[in-house]
Amino acid sequence: MKLISLLGATGSIGTQTLDVIKEHPAEFKLVAMSVGNNIGLARKIIVDFQPELVSVKEKGDIEQLAIEFPRTKFTYGEEGLVEIAVYEKSEVLVNAVLGSVGLYPTLQAIESGKIIALANKETLVTAGHIIMDASKKHNIPLLPVDSEHSAIFQALQGNKMKNVEQLIITASGGSFRDRKRSELENVTVKEALSHPNWSMGAKITIDSATMMNKGLEVIEAHWLFDMPYDKINVLLHKESIIHSMVEFHDSSIIAQLGSPDMRVPIQFALSYPDRLPLSSSRRLNLAEVGLLHFQEMDFNRFRCLHFAIEAGKKGGTLPTVLNAANEVAVAAFLEGKVTFLQIEDLIEKALSAHQSISNPDLTIIQEVDKETRQYVQTLL
Amino acid sequence: MKLISLLGATGSIGTQTLDVIKEHPAEFKLVAMSVGNNIGLARKIIVDFQPELVSVKEKGDIEQLAIEFPRTKFTYGEEGLVEIAVYEKSEVLVNAVLGSVGLYPTLQAIESGKIIALANKETLVTAGHIIMDASKKHNIPLLPVDSEHSAIFQALQGNKMKNVEQLIITASGGSFRDRKRSELENVTVKEALSHPNWSMGAKITIDSATMMNKGLEVIEAHWLFDMPYDKINVLLHKESIIHSMVEFHDSSIIAQLGSPDMRVPIQFALSYPDRLPLSSSRRLNLAEVGLLHFQEMDFNRFRCLHFAIEAGKKGGTLPTVLNAANEVAVAAFLEGKVTFLQIEDLIEKALSAHQSISNPDLTIIQEVDKETRQYVQTLL
Repeated sequence: MKLISLLGATGSIGTQTLDVIKEHPAEFKLVAMSVGNNIGLARKIIVDFQPELVSVKEKGDIEQLAIEFPRTKFTYGEEGLVEIAVYEKSEVLVNAVLGSVGLYPTLQAIESGKIIALANKETLVTAGHIIMDASKKHNIPLLPVDSEHSAIFQALQGNKMKNVEQLIITASGGSFRDRKRSELENVTVKEALSHPNWSMGAKITIDSATMMNKGLEVIEAHWLFDMPYDKINVLLHKESIIHSMVEFHDSSIIAQLGSPDMRVPIQFALSYPDRLPLSSSRRLNLAEVGLLHFQEMDFNRFRCLHFAIEAGKKGGTLPTVLNAANEVAVAAFLEGKVTFLQIEDLIEKALSAHQSISNPDLTIIQEVDKETRQYVQTLL
Repeated sequence: MKLISLLGATGSIGTQTLDVIKEHPAEFKLVAMSVGNNIGLARKIIVDFQPELVSVKEKGDIEQLAIEFPRTKFTYGEEGLVEIAVYEKSEVLVNAVLGSVGLYPTLQAIESGKIIALANKETLVTAGHIIMDASKKHNIPLLPVDSEHSAIFQALQGNKMKNVEQLIITASGGSFRDRKRSELENVTVKEALSHPNWSMGAKITIDSATMMNKGLEVIEAHWLFDMPYDKINVLLHKESIIHSMVEFHDSSIIAQLGSPDMRVPIQFALSYPDRLPLSSSRRLNLAEVGLLHFQEMDFNRFRCLHFAIEAGKKGGTLPTVLNAANEVAVAAFLEGKVTFLQIEDLIEKALSAHQSISNPDLTIIQEVDKETRQYVQTLL
């Protein structure tokens, strides 16, 4: 029985993590979780899973919940996230919270000896050097939850890192994969939100359409697998059936495939190094799929991918700027304040305006994150 | 340094095994080998690799060779194959000899504690129960050299057999994959010998066109991976890029991919559990390939596959009959004595005429093999 803390329980990854826990009551138990503003869903989860500790976003939500659920302890805010992350009884932290707020709790959990199942991209994107150092120092496995990184992680099982020639991260191309750059001028939020393969949260769906998502994944892969950027490649594969691959130096490629279902990588992170049945997952029938397409990535078509890889290579605080600028720009797009292509422009401006600081500590990262958000706001 | 015995050095797998040995002089050394009638090539190999012991097919070839190569010991015939297989200094036996003659030397090598890299299909097809028992008893790893079985073996690394849902063996479809059954009436030997993806020996290329090759692979996979037949499936995949796959019970599929190059699985068997560089191998570029096709297997179109799986399921001496009848029928086709579709008819007749003997020992297998060959000859 693995006892689990879950940050971001009401989000897309959070609820699918709960599905996995529910499917294996003898294997997994939720002991602590954080939720955002969706208190209705939080109530339902508390009833179903009986976590011992729950953190909400707003202090104001606690009083009523404490009355309704007298056997549950409640806490709140960013400190609440840390309390969930380091909750004494928990052995595994699933970090599925969105945004840079997920960083500090991850670090605290590593220092408390928790196994980390990481779905929060910002943790590695902005502070990969700090997180990986800590995970090595405390000998804590960092297990990927993203389908691409999980695919790579699965492909690496039983293999040695020294034999890796390159990582090949596949990209569906997102909502606008079949449109030319010139056709993106006037796309709507609704169009951008209809991802062809995956049902995900709004932010990540937009990141998928701009290809920033893939760029953040490249940076994550760099840290997770200790792989130089010139050994990480991105391949357009519109069916999202091959979730990613590893090429070894004997030219052999190991790939992980499946129907798009985030519960598979989530469960692999929780069951690792074993696998458990996931009977509710739709099995892939390749004869039914019939065709898999592959195409070279066009970095001019997807400028965000280029920005991300460049920011990753240069390092320092540039990935923090990239990420913060992207969060503000995507939010502005979702609110109808900027056009789709302006997301790229805002990120480019923020990156150009920034003087990178090398090897930043958490305080610097948080400051740069804040300053970037303020700066991009001034551009709206 | 691994010291290697090689059965079938002048054949297609044999020469590619020598390529791999040559590429890694610090890792591998050929100490013993058998050759067939190609004495010219044998001379060249002796000069290049300086094996200590060489077995030829015909006794008559020894005298002259012994004069030319005074530092090499020579032997001959079927006993010679066994001498190579159990050669004291060798640690690994690569069995790349064609036909049922490969069976007994494999068994002897297992009993002498050699690691087995197996390319000889007949060994497992006709005597899987004996070979696997012996390999378990002597705790000898049986490493596959076939690209399909190597792919499965690679996909299984770091995983547990209990978690396997099914093995998915891919099939290119062979030379006639795009023809209907009705279009196979008058195909020529030359057409049958032009395989679209792989450059292989004549017998296996015809087996590819009839799909018997895939049938034999299913039987081999059954024994190698201790997998029931209903968990082994065959998928048409005309590009031969995905060499085979394993589906686990969490619905995750691990696949091994690469350009068609037999040296990759050969080298993996030799370097296992490590991987070595294979710089001369053409790296797979999926963007260049562009498309991968998958299609359900049609057992009516490919009757040999159906025969093989049925023979495998029923077991006993039926796989021996299947294999022996196929060898004679394919040889007859290559000699122009029967048509392509008559290969199937001959195998079907041989299977129908045979009364299966369960759990046969080596003597019975050899008798049934001989009787079947004689019987099919009478049908020509």
